[in-house]
Parts: sequence; C-alpha cells; structure tokens
Amino acid sequence: MSRFSSSRLAFLKPYTPGEQPQDKKYIKLNTNEAFFNPCPAVFDAVGEIAGKLRLYNDPCATRLVRAIADKLGVLPENVVTTNGSDEALAFAFMAFCDEKTGVRFPDVTYGFYPVFAAVFGVKANIIPLDEQFNVRSQDYMHAKETVVLANPNAQTGIELGRRQLEEIIASNPDNVVIVDEAYVDFGAHSCVPLIDKYDNLLVVRTMSKSGALAGARVGWCVGSKQLIDDINTVKYSFNPYNVGTMAQAVGEAAARDGEYYAQAAAQVMENRDRLQKGLRELGMSFLPSKANFVLAKKQGRDGKSLYSALKEKGVLVRHFGGRIADYIRISIGSKEEIDFLLCRLKEILQ
Amino acid sequence: MSRFSSSRLAFLKPYTPGEQPQDKKYIKLNTNEAFFNPCPAVFDAVGEIAGKLRLYNDPCATRLVRAIADKLGVLPENVVTTNGSDEALAFAFMAFCDEKTGVRFPDVTYGFYPVFAAVFGVKANIIPLDEQFNVRSQDYMHAKETVVLANPNAQTGIELGRRQLEEIIASNPDNVVIVDEAYVDFGAHSCVPLIDKYDNLLVVRTMSKSGALAGARVGWCVGSKQLIDDINTVKYSFNPYNVGTMAQAVGEAAARDGEYYAQAAAQVMENRDRLQKGLRELGMSFLPSKANFVLAKKQGRDGKSLYSALKEKGVLVRHFGGRIADYIRISIGSKEEIDFLLCRLKEILQ
Repeated sequence: MSRFSSSRLAFLKPYTPGEQPQDKKYIKLNTNEAFFNPCPAVFDAVGEIAGKLRLYNDPCATRLVRAIADKLGVLPENVVTTNGSDEALAFAFMAFCDEKTGVRFPDVTYGFYPVFAAVFGVKANIIPLDEQFNVRSQDYMHAKETVVLANPNAQTGIELGRRQLEEIIASNPDNVVIVDEAYVDFGAHSCVPLIDKYDNLLVVRTMSKSGALAGARVGWCVGSKQLIDDINTVKYSFNPYNVGTMAQAVGEAAARDGEYYAQAAAQVMENRDRLQKGLRELGMSFLPSKANFVLAKKQGRDGKSLYSALKEKGVLVRHFGGRIADYIRISIGSKEEIDFLLCRLKEILQ
Repeated sequence: MSRFSSSRLAFLKPYTPGEQPQDKKYIKLNTNEAFFNPCPAVFDAVGEIAGKLRLYNDPCATRLVRAIADKLGVLPENVVTTNGSDEALAFAFMAFCDEKTGVRFPDVTYGFYPVFAAVFGVKANIIPLDEQFNVRSQDYMHAKETVVLANPNAQTGIELGRRQLEEIIASNPDNVVIVDEAYVDFGAHSCVPLIDKYDNLLVVRTMSKSGALAGARVGWCVGSKQLIDDINTVKYSFNPYNVGTMAQAVGEAAARDGEYYAQAAAQVMENRDRLQKGLRELGMSFLPSKANFVLAKKQGRDGKSLYSALKEKGVLVRHFGGRIADYIRISIGSKEEIDFLLCRLKEILQ
C-alpha cells in the first residue's frame, strides 16, 4: 500500500485467481476452463482469435502492459490496464478517496467524476472554471484532497499548460493528482514523463479516442509503482480478468504501431483546423481545443436548438446543460463529414 | 429503485452516455469517436470485426441481451450483461448490500464473495457447510440479510436441490437471494424459471464455463425488472460500456447456438463420469459434482502434496486451504487429458 491508500484498502485481501502460467506448458486443469472450442459462429466473428477464447485471459495483461510501457517509455510496473478508462477512474476513486479524503475537480469537465464521487460516497469539491473556461491552477494547489483534472479538459478541449500542471502536482505531495489524458494525443502535452519525479501523480489514458478502439475497451493508469500497486489491489478485489483476450490482442497491436497513429492524429488536427475555419466563416465562435472535438456556439442561438436542428438534418452532435448550454460539442470527423456538417450549419443559420 | 436497494443507490444519479442510436443512420459526431480505422495489425487480430471497433459499443448490449433472453425464455428487461460474472457479482454487492444489510454465504464457496464484502464494507456472515459439504437450507431461511449461494457450489460441485433453494428464496421476501449459476449447465437445475414468482431472486450466469468463452468476459444477471434496473443503476454509475463490441458479438453468437453447447455439456458430463470412474479405481474419493470439476482426495495424502506432484508431472490442478485442504480440484478436460491425469495420479499414488 502507498501512503495515499484509502482506509478501505487497509482491510482488503485481494482474491487470488488460479495460476495462469505464461512460461511452461501444462495440461491445464486448474481453472475450470472448457476443453472444447466455442461454436463455429464465434470463429466467424473474430477469426483466428476465437480459438484462444476458451481459456481465461491473462489477468496481468502482460503483453499489452509491456507494449504500452514501451510506447510511453516507462516500466511495466508503472502500468495497469483496465476495461476502458472509466474503469481506471473508478478504481482510482476507490483507491484514493474515502470518507476522509474528498475529491476536487472543475464544474465543467468529464461528467463521470461526480458520479464516481457519489457511488463511492466521496465528498466532491467542485470548482468553477474561470470565465474563459480555463482551469485556474491556484484552485488546485495545496488541495488536501484528491485532485482530478482532465487535460485537455473534457467538453472544453482546453489544455492546462505544463508548468501550471506541474505546480499543482508539486503542491500536493500528500494527495494524489489524477490527470485524465483521454484526449492528449491530438496536440497536447502528456505529463507521463513526470511520474518518476512525483509519486503522487496518476495518469489515466484510453485507446478509445486516438487509438480508434472505443468498442474494444482498453484503458490504463500510469504512475509510480506504489500507486499502480494500489490500483491493482482494487482491480483484484473487483474484477481480476477485467481486460479480455480480444481487447488485449487489439490493444497490443495498436500500441505497437506508433507510426500509423501519429499520422492519424495529424489528420485529426488538420481536420480540426478545417472545422474551425468553417465555423469562423459561419460567424460561430469556439474554444481553443487540443482535443478531437470543438465546443462551438453561435451568438443569439441556444445550443439545444442547434443540436436539434442538426439532428433533424442527420448530424448528431452533443449538447450539455449548465455553463455550456449555449454550445454544441462537435467531434472531429473525416473531411467529408466536416464539410457535410458545415453545409447543414450554413442552412440552419442563414 | 427496488425495495431492496442499498442506501448508496438513493443518492446516485447515473452518468448519461452520449446517444448511441441503433435505429437511424447519422453522421455521428457526438461522442468523440475516431473517423479513421484502427491500424492494419488490429484488423489481422480480429478479422472483420475490427472495422467496428472505432465506434463505441452499444452500452445496452441490445442484441446480446436479446439473444440471452431468448435462450432463457425471459424478457430482455430481465437481463443485464456484464464484463464477466465477477462484475455481475460486484454490481450485485454494490446494489444490495450496505452497512445495514450484510451478506450471508457458506464457508466453502467461491472465494470472491468475502473479497466483495470487504471492498464494499459489507458485514459477511459466513456459515459452515455441513460435514458432507452440503448447504443446510435452514441456515439461509429468514436471513434478514442478502444471501449468496453458488449452485452448484464452487469448489464442491454439489447442487442444492430445487425445493430447498425455493424454500430459501421464499423465506426471504425482504432480502435479495443471489444464486450464482456459473456451473449450472453441466447437469444441474437452473432457478431462472422462478424469477417471475419471486421478485427477490437474482441469478448470475457466465459464458466462461459452459460457453467456452472465459477469455471473452461475458456474464449477466437475470431477475425481476426492478432488480435488473438496480443493477443497471450501478452499471451506469461505474462503467456503462462494460461489455465491448467483440465480447457482445461472440456472446451473441454463442447464445444463439444452443445445440452446439448442449452437445458440449453432454461431453463434459461423459468425461466427468470417466474421471470419477478412474479416481475410484485409484482408491480416491470425491464429492458428487454437478459442475465441470471434481473435488477429490486420497485418504492419507494431503491435497497440497498431490497438487505439487501433479504439477511436477506437467498437470496443473487447483488446491485450496481450509476445510478442503485434503482435496484437489480437477477441471473436466478432454478424454485424453483425463487419461493423462489418471496415469500420472497412478504413478504418484503407487
């Protein structure tokens, strides 16, 4: 246990799964696996991998963890994989928040943070972004509670600068700072290189966005070995086999092809420029996004009606209430999709 | 919420995921999905399904839920799918146990139940099986706390009779009875037909054993609509996209091929007979299993040394401590695997 562990962890004795040896070949009769393969339709569905599904997945996701560690330039002991990054965040709330240690995050951010706080009975201290929707770093310094920041921030797409983020991390030596980097690969800076310097930094990542694997459910945490050990304690007390064989296989394949994804991210950024240029031509304003979406509005139109008008024309964007009720959130699509959206917006606004 | 909900649920407002419409075609720009496909190696890994992975999976797992409901003869509203049945159990503990409502289960059973009790801060009332390792039904009647019974029971493989199980369910009208049917398909009786009669019955199932899909992570709960609604409240507060696209596809394919799996289960039972016959010939005794494993011992030998001797000869079985320390648990393998095991056992015991 690290010095950040919730009181809950002190009493946990994680479940011990049956041995899943990776080194030697056995007649494996220890974990009640079927000796027969799944039915033919399963083979059709996933090709060659179906023949591996009768056996349990590797609970440590050894190959996937190694591929991610190699990609990030960290050690495998600094990584734990999860069933999407939502599960990574849930595990982090379970591990680092309790009735004594609350959690602090912005009013406009990923909508799951307050849900996690509620489900685990953790006091949430919700801090308004400033008027330009920026995180004010002084609001998170010396927090004396767990800090969660999405960077770039969800919904706004705005990146908090490296120096400011490091100030927050450095000023909270006795509390964990969780940085949710779901959108970091589209031009923002990752704070993964800081994990060796700060043992209170936990970075959460996903393959759902830049990895083009939303349906595969591959997320992970990166941090000091002690923090990762704590997350593993929760994982093994909740769902040890949380990342299935297929997810491990596709995640590993994706983590190993950095070149393909670098080109894909560059394409996203190019299309983001195209979208922003088009929005400007339509007299719309938007927040300066480093993510694969843009939060945009038209003076004098409420966001809900724009959302509805676009939906009517076959384009689905997202609308949120609260402080960003004037806006719509537009994901970065292909060039053709962006041009289609811009044409529809033009019809709606003229 | 049902009248069984934990106090935790009363304060939950589940996260609302972006719309994932199944009915109409949109230019989908609402949930920050990539517009590009995953890299070629991902396609190699999972064949045709890879082209669907860039999009989020259906959080309701609509097609999988329908396939399971059809297979069981219940309505889709009576089913919720999970990332393996461990997650189903975790959600059930979160939904139906709290500081006021404890949980009751046998001393010899699935080892994860006490872990769930600990991780969620729930008082566990652990009841010894009788001397023959049977569940005594009177121990679970009028429990005034949540009851969890694996049936057939984990580790022992012994089935609790239909009538006795129904007595337990009927005598606990104000508490949930969770019946974990991970091993039910190998000759035991399911209590799924009772869900219409008892609104306090939650059945947990998995495709890991009889479905030959341990690595795919497909589990589910079956119960009254109110209980399933509660589980969904937890699911949407924890990990809405918990069952990935690939797991949904293979799970659906498997749920639709009842004939294949009926034959496979018959083969398991035939091989179980073969194993038991062989154990008898070696002078070993075993519990009367209805599962895809047999708990066996040899008078005068401790289980640990048998386990080690078999491992030395390349056969991995499982050994537990406590009341079943004399035993080894042998999963039902193929005929060839069973014959190999029996030969090695003969060498060890002579």
